[in-house]
Amino acid sequence: MTAKAVILLSGGLDSATVLAIAQAEGFDVCALTFRYGQRHDVEVEAAGRIAAGAGVTHHVTVDMDLRTFGASALTGDIEVPKDRSEAAIGTGIPITYVPARNTIFLAYALAQAEVSGAFDIFIGVNALDYSGYPDCRPAYIAAFQAMANLATRAGVEGERKTAIHTPLIDLTKALIIRKGLELGVDFALTVSCYDPGPPTDDGIPHCGRCDACILRRKGFAGAGARDPTLYAA
Amino acid sequence: MTAKAVILLSGGLDSATVLAIAQAEGFDVCALTFRYGQRHDVEVEAAGRIAAGAGVTHHVTVDMDLRTFGASALTGDIEVPKDRSEAAIGTGIPITYVPARNTIFLAYALAQAEVSGAFDIFIGVNALDYSGYPDCRPAYIAAFQAMANLATRAGVEGERKTAIHTPLIDLTKALIIRKGLELGVDFALTVSCYDPGPPTDDGIPHCGRCDACILRRKGFAGAGARDPTLYAA
Repeated sequence: MTAKAVILLSGGLDSATVLAIAQAEGFDVCALTFRYGQRHDVEVEAAGRIAAGAGVTHHVTVDMDLRTFGASALTGDIEVPKDRSEAAIGTGIPITYVPARNTIFLAYALAQAEVSGAFDIFIGVNALDYSGYPDCRPAYIAAFQAMANLATRAGVEGERKTAIHTPLIDLTKALIIRKGLELGVDFALTVSCYDPGPPTDDGIPHCGRCDACILRRKGFAGAGARDPTLYAA
Repeated sequence: MTAKAVILLSGGLDSATVLAIAQAEGFDVCALTFRYGQRHDVEVEAAGRIAAGAGVTHHVTVDMDLRTFGASALTGDIEVPKDRSEAAIGTGIPITYVPARNTIFLAYALAQAEVSGAFDIFIGVNALDYSGYPDCRPAYIAAFQAMANLATRAGVEGERKTAIHTPLIDLTKALIIRKGLELGVDFALTVSCYDPGPPTDDGIPHCGRCDACILRRKGFAGAGARDPTLYAA
């Protein structure tokens, strides 16, 4: 029997690449997506198209209540800054910051893994792009994994250990894009923009000017790859 | 300034006692309650009355999606067993079992703590009543705390460490009730029953026959205390 794995799938290009990596490693994938009042639900729809395109038959969408976290660009309560320099993007707390986000995501993934009989969880955290986030670092991931193995019966009894996989943790955006292209990821299905337009037949219109669009464009340029993204500017 | 603490408040007697303990230790309490499709929302209402009765001005209710966890008595999808012996209650997986529940609850508490500027989290886990649950044991709590301190900037930078407090972990139900009575907890406001009736002016009608009612009755008897609970049977 093929081993199952739970993949946190956001609709962005990082987690689409992680999904392809897990499949290339032979896992039977359960994709887990969170709906938390995103501006247009575009991300959740993108996750659905990515999962379907990759032949994933088990895709779970969890509704989350993010009111407790306060305002964030992720929930549409504050304005998305545009045309910032790369230096500005790299400093300070990103507008998409959500306290304890990866801990909450991984906690749900752990629950889903137990329900699905999976002992492998994949998350597209990246220590390079997000050096300001403690919960994207290897030490945090190792501590979550240790905790997870004390949280479940299978882990405590030593029967099966749960592993948290972070295949992108040391990769630049350009290397992630190259890896995804090698594995046949259709990046036109993914969305990075903090302020996207409604999806069209030609793709999801990206503003081209928010921090995420700027980093996406730079990633494709660095990978020397054609950028299939539909940009409004 | 009084230190803030986040308390996981379910509406049951354990967490009502934990709330009183945190207040007795001098903390300014933020109570955190989860609404996840409970049978009658009686638990969430009870949590609100307990918080109000204890003078808590900051009470956050988070809506949670438990579909991912499958059917459970907590969400009303399966029948609640009645009149089981204490021996039967003590064995097997309880019908209220939810995978990774404490991990998810504590992850939200960690987010709330960061938003509130709190570094203390209280949870009413109990290793005696729930010996079958790995995530009620001291080793699990210690591992969550270690992970939490790698998940937040304050923890990583050593500025302030987050502590997970489990004041009930070694107490029997009878000792919890005694402790609560010492601290003035109004147990008539709390609800334990898996199948309660709608609240009345005289209290919340408990079925008296489900596992939780049986353990509650035994706890009051063991504490030698008058049980203020309204029982239907």
